[in-house]
This record gives sequence, C-alpha cells and structure tokens, in this order.
Amino acid sequence: MVSDNNDDAVVVGVDYGTLSGRAVVVRVSDGAELGSAVHAYTHGVVDRELPGTGERLPPDWALQVPSDYIDVLKTAVPQAVAEAGVDPANVIGIATDFTACTMVPTRADGTPLNELPQFAGRKHAYVKLWKHHAAQPHADRINTLAAERGESWLPRYGGLISSEWEFAKGLQLLEEDPEVYAATERWVEAADWIVWQLSGSYVRNACTAGYKGIRQDGGYPSREFLAALNPEFAGFVEDKLDQPIGQLGDRAGGLTAQAAQWTGLPEGIAVAVGNVDAHVTAPAAQAVEPGQMVAIMGTSTCHVMNGDVLREVPGMCGVVDGGIIAGLQGYEAGQSGVGDVFGWFVDTSVPASYAAEAAQRGQSVHDYLTELAAAQQVGEHGLIALDWQSGNRSVLVDHELSGVVVGQTLATKPEDVYRALIEATAFGTRTIIDTFNASGVEVTELIIAGGLLKNRLIMQIYADVTGLPLSVIGSEQGPALGSAIHAAVAAGAYPDVRAGAAAMGNVERGVYQPDPDNAKAYDALYAEYVTLHDYFGRGGNDVMHRLRAIKRAAVTR
Amino acid sequence: MVSDNNDDAVVVGVDYGTLSGRAVVVRVSDGAELGSAVHAYTHGVVDRELPGTGERLPPDWALQVPSDYIDVLKTAVPQAVAEAGVDPANVIGIATDFTACTMVPTRADGTPLNELPQFAGRKHAYVKLWKHHAAQPHADRINTLAAERGESWLPRYGGLISSEWEFAKGLQLLEEDPEVYAATERWVEAADWIVWQLSGSYVRNACTAGYKGIRQDGGYPSREFLAALNPEFAGFVEDKLDQPIGQLGDRAGGLTAQAAQWTGLPEGIAVAVGNVDAHVTAPAAQAVEPGQMVAIMGTSTCHVMNGDVLREVPGMCGVVDGGIIAGLQGYEAGQSGVGDVFGWFVDTSVPASYAAEAAQRGQSVHDYLTELAAAQQVGEHGLIALDWQSGNRSVLVDHELSGVVVGQTLATKPEDVYRALIEATAFGTRTIIDTFNASGVEVTELIIAGGLLKNRLIMQIYADVTGLPLSVIGSEQGPALGSAIHAAVAAGAYPDVRAGAAAMGNVERGVYQPDPDNAKAYDALYAEYVTLHDYFGRGGNDVMHRLRAIKRAAVTR
Repeated sequence: MVSDNNDDAVVVGVDYGTLSGRAVVVRVSDGAELGSAVHAYTHGVVDRELPGTGERLPPDWALQVPSDYIDVLKTAVPQAVAEAGVDPANVIGIATDFTACTMVPTRADGTPLNELPQFAGRKHAYVKLWKHHAAQPHADRINTLAAERGESWLPRYGGLISSEWEFAKGLQLLEEDPEVYAATERWVEAADWIVWQLSGSYVRNACTAGYKGIRQDGGYPSREFLAALNPEFAGFVEDKLDQPIGQLGDRAGGLTAQAAQWTGLPEGIAVAVGNVDAHVTAPAAQAVEPGQMVAIMGTSTCHVMNGDVLREVPGMCGVVDGGIIAGLQGYEAGQSGVGDVFGWFVDTSVPASYAAEAAQRGQSVHDYLTELAAAQQVGEHGLIALDWQSGNRSVLVDHELSGVVVGQTLATKPEDVYRALIEATAFGTRTIIDTFNASGVEVTELIIAGGLLKNRLIMQIYADVTGLPLSVIGSEQGPALGSAIHAAVAAGAYPDVRAGAAAMGNVERGVYQPDPDNAKAYDALYAEYVTLHDYFGRGGNDVMHRLRAIKRAAVTR
Repeated sequence: MVSDNNDDAVVVGVDYGTLSGRAVVVRVSDGAELGSAVHAYTHGVVDRELPGTGERLPPDWALQVPSDYIDVLKTAVPQAVAEAGVDPANVIGIATDFTACTMVPTRADGTPLNELPQFAGRKHAYVKLWKHHAAQPHADRINTLAAERGESWLPRYGGLISSEWEFAKGLQLLEEDPEVYAATERWVEAADWIVWQLSGSYVRNACTAGYKGIRQDGGYPSREFLAALNPEFAGFVEDKLDQPIGQLGDRAGGLTAQAAQWTGLPEGIAVAVGNVDAHVTAPAAQAVEPGQMVAIMGTSTCHVMNGDVLREVPGMCGVVDGGIIAGLQGYEAGQSGVGDVFGWFVDTSVPASYAAEAAQRGQSVHDYLTELAAAQQVGEHGLIALDWQSGNRSVLVDHELSGVVVGQTLATKPEDVYRALIEATAFGTRTIIDTFNASGVEVTELIIAGGLLKNRLIMQIYADVTGLPLSVIGSEQGPALGSAIHAAVAAGAYPDVRAGAAAMGNVERGVYQPDPDNAKAYDALYAEYVTLHDYFGRGGNDVMHRLRAIKRAAVTR
C-alpha cells in the first residue's frame, strides 16, 4: 500500500453490462466490497423497434440509448455509496468498464447524435451495441481486402476481424446512412464515452483501441486501405477515430462538476481511463503475470491473459500491447457459447419427468442434471460432443459452425448429454490453451471468474480436462472490482495496476486440482474431440457450412 | 379364385409376436377380416427371473415359456371365430407366423425341455426368444471361423451371421449347459414347433431354415466346420436340426384331434407350414413380384423383397431360395431402430412445455411434434442425423455403431431434431435400396406395413427421400392376414401364394408420391448422410467403437 492511503479511502467501480450497470464501492486498503447497486437500462437492448418512431429494426440490429448509461451514474452510484455506509468525501476515484465493441456516434463535444432533434428518428444515430451483427457483409469485405493486401495487422486478430468491431460498424454507418455518418464527428467506444462524460476528457483506452479499433504498433489501418473499401471511408481514422491513447490505470481527468452532481461524489476526484468488462476482471483475480489465463465463464467464455512476448496465435481474438496490463501483451480468446449451450439444452431437451423431479427436490433443472452427471465415471455416457452450437470464436473463428453429438443409444439419458456438453466446452478451452502453448505463449494457470464458477462439477471437469489447477476469483463482481482497482491506481493510491491488484484483488488459488485418473481418461476423449474438431472445423467435411446454406435457401423458398 | 371355394369359407391366421398372439378370421374369397382376438402371454418375456426358481438371469437373456403359445390357440382362436360370427365348420385351414429366430429345445416328440420335471429349474431348458442376445461371443466365433475358412454361405448373410440365430444359440446351449444340450433331441424354431403342435408333423419351413438356420443350396454348415468350433458341436445339424423342408404355403398336415379341441376348429383341416411375421406380410401387401420391397415399419424396420436372381448384397440380413415366395429368391434387410428412436427422443428429449401443449391440444407428443415438423421446408432445421441409436443391422451390420446429430444451434428446437431423426431413418432405408440396386437386385416399389404407416409426415418423407411412390398395406394386421393367405393356399383354395395374395391381399398403390422439389432437396441432404455414414461407419473414424470401449471400461472401473 502506498503512503497517502488511509483506511477510510474508498473507490467506485462501475460495470456497464448489456442490460444494466452495477456500481460497487470498494475499500482501497484491502479491496473489501462495502456496497453495491444495480440500475437496469430503461431502454434495455433496442432490437425490435426504434424508440419514439416505432420503426421496426432489421434482423441482427441491436442498439442502445446513451442516456441510460448516465442514469446508472445518477442512481446506482449514489445508492451503492449509501449502501456502503461511507462518507462520499472518502471516495477518491471512480472507474468504469463497458461491453465492447459498443459504439456511440457523437458531435465533437460528445453529444450523441440521437439526442439531436434532427436525428432522433434515425436508427443509425443510436448506439450500436456489441451484439449488433448487421455489419457482417462489411466485415467480410474488410477481411477479404486485408488478406489480399497482406495487411500486417490482420494476424494480430487471428486472421479475422469481427463484424462487431469499430471499422465494420463504421463502414455500415457510412454506406447505409451517409448523412448521419457525415454528422458523426467522433465515433466513440462507449467505454470511452462514459469516461468523457465523467471527466470532460475524451481519451481512448488502449484496450478497446487495440482489440476493437485495430490499433497496432501505434497506428491504424491506412488511408489507402480504407479508400479501397470505399473512397468516402478514406478519412475515417483521422476524421472520426484517432484520439490520444490512455493506458489502463491512467487518470483520464478529474470528475466534472456535472458528474459530481450526478453521482454525489466529490468534484475533481480521479476518473480512470476506460476498460472492457472481461479484461478488467484480470486484475480483480490477481492475474497480472504472464501465463495466468482468466476465463470469464458465463453465457459465453472470454479468455484473457498477459504475455511477455508478442506472438501470432492462430484464431485468437486479438493481441494488444497494454491491452490488459500496461507494459505486457494482452491476449484475448473466447468461446461463443458456454452457459448459453447448457441453458439451451435445459430449455429444449430435458423431459417433463426431470423438471418434476427437480421441482420436488427443490432444485433447478441445472442442479438436478449436475447431480446426476456428477455420479458418472469419465466416459460412462459414451458420448462426445462439439461445443459450436453458437459457432466457434477461437481457434477456428467460424460462426457458421454448429453443434455435434456423437454416440447416442436408446439408453442415452439427458444427464449424459448434459455432461457431454459440459465436457465439450472444457475441450474447447483446452484447444485454446493448447493453441497458445503451441504458439509460444505458455499458459500456466487457469483462473475462473463469472457465474459458472458456482458449479463444482463444471469446475472439476475443467481441471481434469485441462490438467491445470483451477483458481477461482474471490468476488462475485469481478469487473466492478477490477474497475475499482483501476480507480485506486488512477487516484494514485497504488503505483500501478499490479500493485493495486495485489492489495485489492481476490483469488483462491488451486481450488480444483486435476484428478490424475480422470485427467488420463479425458486425454483419450480429448483426442476424439480433436479429431472431430478438425474434421468438421478444418475442412475435412464442410457439412456444417452446407447445412447453413441449405437452411437459408429453405427458409427463403 | 379356385373352383372349390365357397363364399362362406374362412381361414384363421395366427400372428405370434413378442408379447402376445393374435388370431384373425379371414374370408377366403376376398380377404375380408371378419374377427380377431389377442392373447397376451402369461409369462411375457422372461428376462429377469426364471419362473418358479426366482433365479436372476444374466444380462442379454430373453426367454419364453412354450405353454403360453398353446394358450393363444386355446383362447384367441375361438374368440376370434366367435367375434367373426362364423360357423367353425366353415374354417378350412389355419396358419401361423412367429417371431424369429426363437428356439425351443425339445425331446424327439416335441415336448419342450422346461416341461420335464428334471429340467424345470434350468434356464437353458426354456425357449430362447429372438432378442436373447447372450450368444454374441458364440456368433463372433462362428463369423471369424467362417471368414477364415471362406465358407460359401457367409456372403448370403451379408458377411455376418447374428447372435440371434440357431447356430449361435445352439453353441451357447452346448457350452453353458452340456446336459440340457444332450437332452435336446430337437432344436426347433418356434415357428415350426407351433405347427408341429397343430398338425403333429415336424416340418421345417424354408424361411427360417434359410434366414436363421444357415440352410443354403440344400445344405447346412459342414460337420468339419462345426467340429472346428467345438468337437462336441460336430453333430449339431444331423442330430438336432435337420428335418424335411416345407415350402411356404405347403400343407404341413391336418389339424390333430387335440389341436381341434384347443381351437374349436374342425379336426383335419389344413395346417400350413410355418412362417416369420415380417416375411408373411409380403403376400398380405400383394408384394409377390421381384422389385416390390415391403418395409414393415415399427419399433424397428424389416425389409423383405423377392428377386428373380441370386445376388450377394453387401450387408443384407440374408437371401433365401423360397424364403418369401416359393420359387423366388427372398431378400431380407433391416434397420435396428426406427420407431424406437422416435420413442426414445420423445421420452428423453422433449421439454415439459411441449408435453403440456400437446396435452392441451389433446394430442400425443408424437402427433404434436409431427405437426410442427410438417410445417417445415426440407432442410429448414439445418440438421443431419445418423439413425444408429440402436446400431446398424444393414448395410454396415454393426451393432456397436451409435447415433449422431450434426448442426445444432441455440435456435434448434425439439421438432427440428425429431424431423431430422425421421429423415435419418429414411436415409437409412434409401441406403439399403441403393445397395440392392447397386448389387443388381432392383427395387421398383416401396410398400409400407406396420404401425408407422399412420404417420403421414413420415410416409411423405420416405417417398421424397427414396424418390419412390409409396404403397400402403390395406390391413392393420398384416402378418395375420399373410398367415391367413398361407392357410387358404395350404387348404387348396388357391393354387399358390401369388394367387392367394391377389385375391386376399390388400394394398393401396401409390398413396404417397415423391414431391419433385423435395426429392431434389433431399438428394443434397442424402449426400451429406452418405458422407457421414461412411466416415463413421466404414472406418473413416472409428470413434463410435472407441466410445463403446471407453464406456464399458468406465462402467466396470
């Protein structure tokens, strides 16, 4: 701890999720979480009708309303402070993390375009949420052109950039509503926009600039590249995107008078540079050294890890200098469907008799299936599954892939498939780890955060499948705690995020140890997974792509 | 119709199934079904405890008690005659069909060994039902030795004989209970034993002798072959099996006084040579010419067809001279799991919400899923499945294979998988048809019998997938009607089974026509099926075998 700390000093971390924002008040000296509050966005995810006009949105659109983000500052922050029972005067800093890539079109002063009367009824004037997937054709063109031109930044993203990211969404904006594009003086990550609202300073954080903004080696895709996509797009970077970069943990500015009024916090306290929910979880779990991979396991899984070398890992989401911890290479990978897959299975594939039995026991169906599955030996169900029901984000980076279950007999029961699906996601994580290891970025520890860590069976299977000891984050509010650490560092309470993480982060190490017999048994099953993974995922049999094409043709027939 | 028929003449067909026997009274002149009755076997399938002793049976055992078969004659036959409202004096013949291969160990006079006091407590003294699967090791030895020696009969069975058949069960009897084996003076197909009880004559029917008794070209496996299996087995054929062969439709003898007393039928009326439930259905569906394939679709599907040439079709169950119609080559193939697979899916994989909705509509879950699936375009679900949840009987002849579903996404619904499973079984049928065609035994028409013909969606999918017009049997009691035709022929009312079938059989031709667009769409999906079929079934990836081995090892750990 640094000299000017006192035991009363607290910070506020605010985690902006997809449907709500959560504020947590954290003691600077030891990371104790003293109070928290959640505010659900009034407009939630806008994916059906545009507010006010009632215009129906096209498929794959997902918008948000920026004022909802401000409302979190006005409600959740003061509520959390009140719940913590601390004097607001003791708050020395605030930091935020956000979903990404979530983009706000603004004027030069940061005013969102949808708040201007002339654009209120224009869908392109709203925030494009991370899961707005309508820019896929634009992403495809970006990828094709980048591959043709051999753009040096492409391998930093495993060979493919996503339709979710800044350039694809920006190109869609240009081509579908040139007037709004022209009025967009700044194309701002929401992670930075909220910091701008708090501090009055527009600083791009190194994390989203790298992972979502294709900023590599200090620059962006070239003017020539952009012009080749569309001549009108040539000035996109210099006109709308480029901005000073802030390293994670840096102070973006002091809390403005207006933001002090919104939040009830002291004017002038440190506002940290923005961050992303997944990445900010790493320091909360004290995963600040190379080789410590954090898996944030929820509906999907995001893997973040620091490395001390820059390597091109096939199929990773991205590697960004200072993307997680300033001074280290931040690697990101992911699995598109994890908890989502288990949820889909429970919703669609578990019979009434199981639901009734679970209800009688006072258990959720998940817990009942978990109990039944936990009683099995490894391999007893005779199944092997692929975990691509929501596509493959890493290592294959192919969202047209789909799920497989092999080995059903007339004796196969729901808990058998449930366990096979859990194992499939664990094999998916092992595939990512193996790919990192093979690329010279060694994974030495797996640290679990996110909602699934409560399921002991899933945790033990992940330990047995990966052969790694599993550490577990000690907070249920990992992103908010991570933001609080950044707030403390920005406020000068710690010299850097590493030191802040050491004092305020919370992890239980080695909670799950691989069972040697199970690990050996899983080696055999993992070999089967890899064979099927490569057969269906690497061109051995492109049936999944053809089934998608057949499906699309059938639906439009 | 033949001269000595009169409009009052009737016959009785008795269909011996797995759990009960059904008697049907049929008018000779036109095949009208006048009355029927069912008698459930008192002992059902004995697969847990031996009657009387309470001895627990080993896994895969399935026995029956012969007196249950006699009870059908005593109860169902007179009830059916009474329900028909006919004078028993007008009954001119009786015929039976049976499950096969179902084996009765008897003394030289036909007395089942379990009815002798000294063997009442011995499990090997009971009937071994068709689905007694405990002789697999013996079947394996027979197959290995036959392949090594290049036995000429092996290709007539697609290269593999089954553990269900006469030789495997006989070898098990010898090696596990030599005393009962020694006391077994005759090793009798139940299909022939019941005829023996009715007529006093032991005549082996050409059908089971060929399909289950490895009788080919007038002979059985040689003494040398049997001695190589086990020296004590050398005399198996000549001591216990060989017997005069009766062609289907032949008169085995006249009804004995005792059987007349059991049944209430006139002493001396014709008793036809025995038959098998599947094969006897062919004349009931008027499928007596080469190229007319009958698919009896229930829990499993059995395909029977006549051909005018003898060809070795890879993976067929068997080809037998006169096995269906005297004078033609009778071909048999099958799919181990069809209705069973749909039933398993409904029992294990359909959520409570669907069960509730079906109940509210007053529908079965099957009918509800069928209605939802019927609303889809071909390929709309984006799935492809393999239908091996109960193994593969033809063309691969591999019961260690298992099921596969490819293509699930988080949007996949139960009706999607249900339809994909229906389609998988249709693809399985097409694979069999293609194999016959490729072997020079052309399939020109598909005629459906069995319980699944009531499902119009399944029928249409089979027409679309095979590209063949589907005819449908006009009787709900196909086997019993087929037996009745054999009874009429044995009684001399018709010169042969063809003529009897023409007059008494019942089929609606071309009820389902392939839809050209759907057939084309299914061609593309069938190509995917074939690729997966060969990958998982022909050694591309033996994962299913390895998963079985892993499962067995896990369970015994």
